[in-house]
Amino acid sequence: MDRLRSCSLRDIRIDDPFWNKYTQLVPREVIPYQWSTLNDSVEGAEPSHAIRNFRIAAGMETGDFYGFVFQDSDVAKWLEAVAYSLSWQPDAGLEKRADDTIAVIAAAQQPDGYLDTYFIINTPGREFFNLQEGHELYCAGHMIEAGTAYYKVTGKRTLLDVCIRMADHICDVFHRPDHLAAVPGHEEIELALVKLYEVTGQEKYLKMAKDFIDRRGQEPNYLENESKNPGWTQIFANMQDYSADYSQSDRPVRMQTRAEGHAVRAVYLYSAMADVAYYAHDESLLAACERLWEDITQRQMYITGGIGSSGILERFTTDYHLPNEGAYAESCASVGLALFCRRMSQITHDAKYMDTAETALCNTVLAGIAQDGKSFFYVNPLAVWPEACMKHTSLEHVKPVRQKWFSCACCPPNIARTLASLGEYCYFENEEGLWVNLFVSGQVDLLRGGKKFTLTVKTRFPFDGSVSMTIRGEGAMDGKLMVRIPSYVKAYSFTVKGQETRPEVEKGYAAIGGLSDGDTVEVKFSIPAEYVHADPKLRADEGRVAIRKGPVVYCLEETDNGDNLEQILADTAAPLCEEYREDLLGGTLIIHAEGCRSMIEGLPEGCLYGTGHTVYRPAELTLVPYAYWDNRKTGEMQVWMREKFH
Amino acid sequence: MDRLRSCSLRDIRIDDPFWNKYTQLVPREVIPYQWSTLNDSVEGAEPSHAIRNFRIAAGMETGDFYGFVFQDSDVAKWLEAVAYSLSWQPDAGLEKRADDTIAVIAAAQQPDGYLDTYFIINTPGREFFNLQEGHELYCAGHMIEAGTAYYKVTGKRTLLDVCIRMADHICDVFHRPDHLAAVPGHEEIELALVKLYEVTGQEKYLKMAKDFIDRRGQEPNYLENESKNPGWTQIFANMQDYSADYSQSDRPVRMQTRAEGHAVRAVYLYSAMADVAYYAHDESLLAACERLWEDITQRQMYITGGIGSSGILERFTTDYHLPNEGAYAESCASVGLALFCRRMSQITHDAKYMDTAETALCNTVLAGIAQDGKSFFYVNPLAVWPEACMKHTSLEHVKPVRQKWFSCACCPPNIARTLASLGEYCYFENEEGLWVNLFVSGQVDLLRGGKKFTLTVKTRFPFDGSVSMTIRGEGAMDGKLMVRIPSYVKAYSFTVKGQETRPEVEKGYAAIGGLSDGDTVEVKFSIPAEYVHADPKLRADEGRVAIRKGPVVYCLEETDNGDNLEQILADTAAPLCEEYREDLLGGTLIIHAEGCRSMIEGLPEGCLYGTGHTVYRPAELTLVPYAYWDNRKTGEMQVWMREKFH
Repeated sequence: MDRLRSCSLRDIRIDDPFWNKYTQLVPREVIPYQWSTLNDSVEGAEPSHAIRNFRIAAGMETGDFYGFVFQDSDVAKWLEAVAYSLSWQPDAGLEKRADDTIAVIAAAQQPDGYLDTYFIINTPGREFFNLQEGHELYCAGHMIEAGTAYYKVTGKRTLLDVCIRMADHICDVFHRPDHLAAVPGHEEIELALVKLYEVTGQEKYLKMAKDFIDRRGQEPNYLENESKNPGWTQIFANMQDYSADYSQSDRPVRMQTRAEGHAVRAVYLYSAMADVAYYAHDESLLAACERLWEDITQRQMYITGGIGSSGILERFTTDYHLPNEGAYAESCASVGLALFCRRMSQITHDAKYMDTAETALCNTVLAGIAQDGKSFFYVNPLAVWPEACMKHTSLEHVKPVRQKWFSCACCPPNIARTLASLGEYCYFENEEGLWVNLFVSGQVDLLRGGKKFTLTVKTRFPFDGSVSMTIRGEGAMDGKLMVRIPSYVKAYSFTVKGQETRPEVEKGYAAIGGLSDGDTVEVKFSIPAEYVHADPKLRADEGRVAIRKGPVVYCLEETDNGDNLEQILADTAAPLCEEYREDLLGGTLIIHAEGCRSMIEGLPEGCLYGTGHTVYRPAELTLVPYAYWDNRKTGEMQVWMREKFH
Repeated sequence: MDRLRSCSLRDIRIDDPFWNKYTQLVPREVIPYQWSTLNDSVEGAEPSHAIRNFRIAAGMETGDFYGFVFQDSDVAKWLEAVAYSLSWQPDAGLEKRADDTIAVIAAAQQPDGYLDTYFIINTPGREFFNLQEGHELYCAGHMIEAGTAYYKVTGKRTLLDVCIRMADHICDVFHRPDHLAAVPGHEEIELALVKLYEVTGQEKYLKMAKDFIDRRGQEPNYLENESKNPGWTQIFANMQDYSADYSQSDRPVRMQTRAEGHAVRAVYLYSAMADVAYYAHDESLLAACERLWEDITQRQMYITGGIGSSGILERFTTDYHLPNEGAYAESCASVGLALFCRRMSQITHDAKYMDTAETALCNTVLAGIAQDGKSFFYVNPLAVWPEACMKHTSLEHVKPVRQKWFSCACCPPNIARTLASLGEYCYFENEEGLWVNLFVSGQVDLLRGGKKFTLTVKTRFPFDGSVSMTIRGEGAMDGKLMVRIPSYVKAYSFTVKGQETRPEVEKGYAAIGGLSDGDTVEVKFSIPAEYVHADPKLRADEGRVAIRKGPVVYCLEETDNGDNLEQILADTAAPLCEEYREDLLGGTLIIHAEGCRSMIEGLPEGCLYGTGHTVYRPAELTLVPYAYWDNRKTGEMQVWMREKFH
C-alpha cells in the first residue's frame, strides 16, 4: 500500500465563497466562543467547567469535578482546533492562551504520566478500572491529537511531551498481565496513537494501537467481564444494559461486516483500522474497512452523510432504517465518517471515499454549526416540526434550534477542529502528483522534485461546476495533477493549457501530467440540481424525493414555504430552477421547484378522522441548502418531499 | 345530573360472533394463563413473583420482594377480572382459587390497614413517603376495584373488608397535617374510592377521592417538593427529571384544557373526575372532563383509539403529533380511555363518548391480546417493520410480536378485566329506559316497573349493520329502548314491530317506546367499509388514507400483501370490496382494495440515493382488522396507506 499524504495545513490557504463563511469563522468566532464556554462565561449556555477541572486536578484551585467523565476531551479538541487554525492563521494572543492552557494540563498530569481530571479528582489512584464507561483512553486520544497537531504547527513540545508520558504509561498498563485483553470502551486512542507514532517514530505506539484493534471482540470479552473485577464501580446508571455491539466489541474487527452500535465509536475505530491496515500492510484489516464503508454508504447513511439513526444510544439500527423526523445523525459521527473516508481514499487512491467525506462535510458537519459560529446541532434530523420536539418525549433528542452549548459537548469542538483542518481534505500528495479532492478556491504550496510550486484554484463550487486551476512555480512540475471526478457529476470536460483533453481516469481521479509554470487546467463539471430518489428498501423515503446539487442536499424551510411541509408534493416532471442569492444566508444558491399542496376537503369540523377527499393546489417551492437550515426563523424543515404522482 | 347505570354483569349474557372469541377466552384461557404467570410457571415469560410477594409480606414464605413497586396491582386486576368473569360464568374452582388468594392478601395486610408488599417487605414502617414514585395509592386503588367487584358478585366480604381497612387508613393518613396537600403520583385510587363509596355508602371515601382531585396541581406542588422531606429515597433512577405535567399535577384539574403527561395516569384521573363531578354536582369539573375528551379525540388520539404517542414516559406529546411507526399507544391507556368515556356517556347521556369508547375497545384493546389469549401488546403502533424494532434503539418499546408477559405487566390483566366486563359498556339503564350502546348478540335481563323482561339482541355487528332486538317479558315495558346511533353510520332505518319508523334522536340515542312482550326492533345501520382521511394538521398521516368499517380500523399485513408496505398506494377512487372469511382469524370480514406499488427504476446498483424515476404497478390489497394483526405470521403492518394521486 502506498498512502497519499494530506498536504500540510501551513501550505494551504482557503479563500472560497462556499467555505469562507465557515472556515474563517473558526479563528474569528468559534475558537474565542468555545474558549468562553469552556470557561463558563457564556450566559445561558450549559456549564462546561472543563478548564476548571484541569486547574483543580493541577492543584491550582480547589473544588469538585463537574461534568461528564469525558469532559477533558472538549479542551483537547479545542486545542487541536487552535493548532490547525494557527497553522494557516498565526495569532500570537491565541497561541499564548493555548500555551497557558497546556501549562495547566501539564501541571495536572500525574507523576506516572496518567492524565484524566475526572479520576484524578474523584478517585485518585484508581485508573482504568472501568474502561467500558470511563473514557480515559478516549480523552487520552483527543489529547494526543491535540499534542501532535500543536507540535506540528508550533514546534513546541510541552503538550507533546505530556502526551508521550501519558502514552508511555498507557503502553505500560495495557501490556500488564491484568490488562492484556483490555480495550477502550470508546475508541479514539487507536487513531491518536498512530499520530503519535507518526510524529515520534516510536513503534510501540503503533503496536499499542494495533493491539487495541486486534484485541477487540476477542473472547472472553474484556468489557463484558470488567464489571466482575473487585472494586468496579458503575459510572453511567444505564450502562449495564449495553450490549457488546454497542462498542463494536461483539466480534473481532476483521469479522465485522456491518456498522453496528454507537456511530461515533464505530467510525473512530474504522479510522484507526485504516491507519493500522496501512502501516501493518494488513490486507484483511483493509478489507474489513472496505466492507464497513460499503455497509454504511449502501444501507445505513442518510443522504446528508448522517449516520447512527437511533436517538437511544446514538447508534446504528437496522439496514435501511433511516427515519427522517426522529433521526439522530450526530454531528460527531459525520466528522468521524469524514475522517474514516479520508483515510480510505489516501490508502486506496479511490475517489469514491471522498464522495462520502464530502457529503458528510457539506451537509451534516456544516449544519452542525450556525452561521455566526455560536450555536450548534448535536442531532441532525432530516425533517423537523418544532412543536413535536418536546422534552421528556421520544423526540427529546431533536432540537429545532441550535444550542449554545451542551452538557455533553463533544460536537461543537469537533466541528471546529474539522473546519480548521479542511485543507487536509482538499489536497493529498505522493510521488505520483498532487491529488485535488475538494474544489475550494485558494492556494496550495508544493515542493516537487526540489522545486517550489503553487497551485491556485478558482471556483464557485459547489454552486457552480467550473473549476480553474493554475500552476505557478519553478518550471516544469514533477508528477501529475490528479483531479477527483465526483460520482454525482453528470458530465465533465477538461481544458488543459487551452486545449480540451480527455484525461485518463483511474478510481475516480483524472490524471493530468506535463504541467509547468503558468499552465491552467479548467474543469467543467455538470452538476445541475436534480431530484434524487432513495433505494425503495429505505421505507422512510418511499414515495419521496430530495433535491441535490453536486454534494449539497437541499431542504424546504417553513420560512420560505409556509408551515405543514408534509402537505407539499414536488413535481419531479417540472424543471428545477437555480438562483444565486447574494443577500440570503451569507450568499447561497437556492432552488425553485414546482409542486402542489394536498388538502383534505369535506372532513367534518372538529373531526380528527373522517371521510373527505384530497385536492391539490399548485405551489411554488423554494429550497435552501440543508447545511443552512435554522439560520433564519425557527420553523419546520424537510429534506424528503412527497413526490407528485404522474 | 342523572347518571345512567351500567346493567349488572350478572344480568348480561354475551354470545356474539365478533366478541365471543375474546370474551369467552377470558375464563377459558386468559384467567388461568395469567394465574400461571403471576405464579411464575409460564416458561419463557418475564417473571412476575406477584403472588409470592404477597406470601412473603404475609410471613408465609421467606424471600425478597421482586418486581416493580406496583407489582401488587397485577394480582388486583386479575382478581377483578375473575370477579367479572364469575358474574357471568360461575366456576367454583376459580372462585376457590380467588378466595385462597384473597386470604393471602388479607394475611399480608398490616394491623393499621396498610397494604403494599413492596414497602412491607423492603421498608417496613415507611409508608407513603414517596407518592411520586411509590404507587401505593395506585395499588390500593386496584385492590379496591377488585374488592368491590368481588363482593358484588360473590357477596363475600373478606377482600372488601381488607379494602375498607386500607381505605380507612388512607383517609386517616391523608387528612393528617403533613399530608393535607398530598396527591397520588399515579392516579387510580380516586375512581376506586368512588366505587367503595358506592358499595359502602360511606361518604368519607367519596370525600377522599374529591380531595385528591381538588388538591391536584395546587401550589405549593406536593409531588415536586416531596423529595425535600427528610428520609426521602428515590425509587426510579430517572424520575427526578419528570415534570409536573407528567402526572397532571402542573395545575388544578379544573384548569386543565389539554391532556398532558402519562396517558394512563391522565385517563384514570379523568374517569374519577367524571365520577366526582356527578356525585358532587360539580359542573366545573364536568366541563373540564368535556374539554379534555374533546382535546384527546380532536387532537391527540390515533384512529385506533390509542393515546399517548411518546415511547419515552408513555405520554401525550403535542397536538396532532401521532407518529405511526414509533407510536406508544399503550393498551392500558385505551382501557382507561374507554373507562373515562363510558362514565361521560353515563353522566351526559351523550352517545358521542361511546363512539370513542367503542373505537378504543374494538381496535387497541383487542389488538392488545392474541387470539389464543396468551400473549399481549403493551405498545400498539400503527405501522410496524419488525426488523427496525430493535433493543437499545429508539424503537425498542415497539414489539412486532405479542409478548408472553412483561416485567411491567399492567396491560395483560387490564385487558382481561376489560373484556370480562364488556357488558358494562353494552347496556345502561335509568328511569327513562334501557340504553343500548354496543351492538352485541346476547341477552340482558331487566326489571322495569317491577316486571321482568329480557332483551335479546341478534347481530353480526360490526361486520354487518343489521341489529335485531326482541323484548320478552311480563307485558308492556316501562320506559324506552334508547339505541345508540354511532357517528360513523352513513344512514339508518328502524323497523319497530314490523313498521318502519323514524324515532326521535337525542344526543345520538334513538328513543323507541311502547314496547311489549314479543316486540322486535330492527335497525339497519349503513356502515360500508370506507376510506378515511386524517385532519391535515396530523402530519404523519398526510397523503395517506386508512380503511374503516364502522368502528373497526383495518390494516395491511405483510402476510397478505408482501413486504415493504410503504410501497403500496391505495386507489381511493376504486371501490372497496368486503368479504367474510370464516376460515381466517377465527372468522372475519376482510377488505379488498385496489392500488399500486411504487418502484424506483434507474437507480444505480448499490446506490442508496440517486437519480431514478418512479413507476407504479397495479396491486390488489387485502386488509384485515387492526385488532387481529400479528395473529398469523410475524411481519410488517400498516394502517395508514399512501393515497394514490388523482
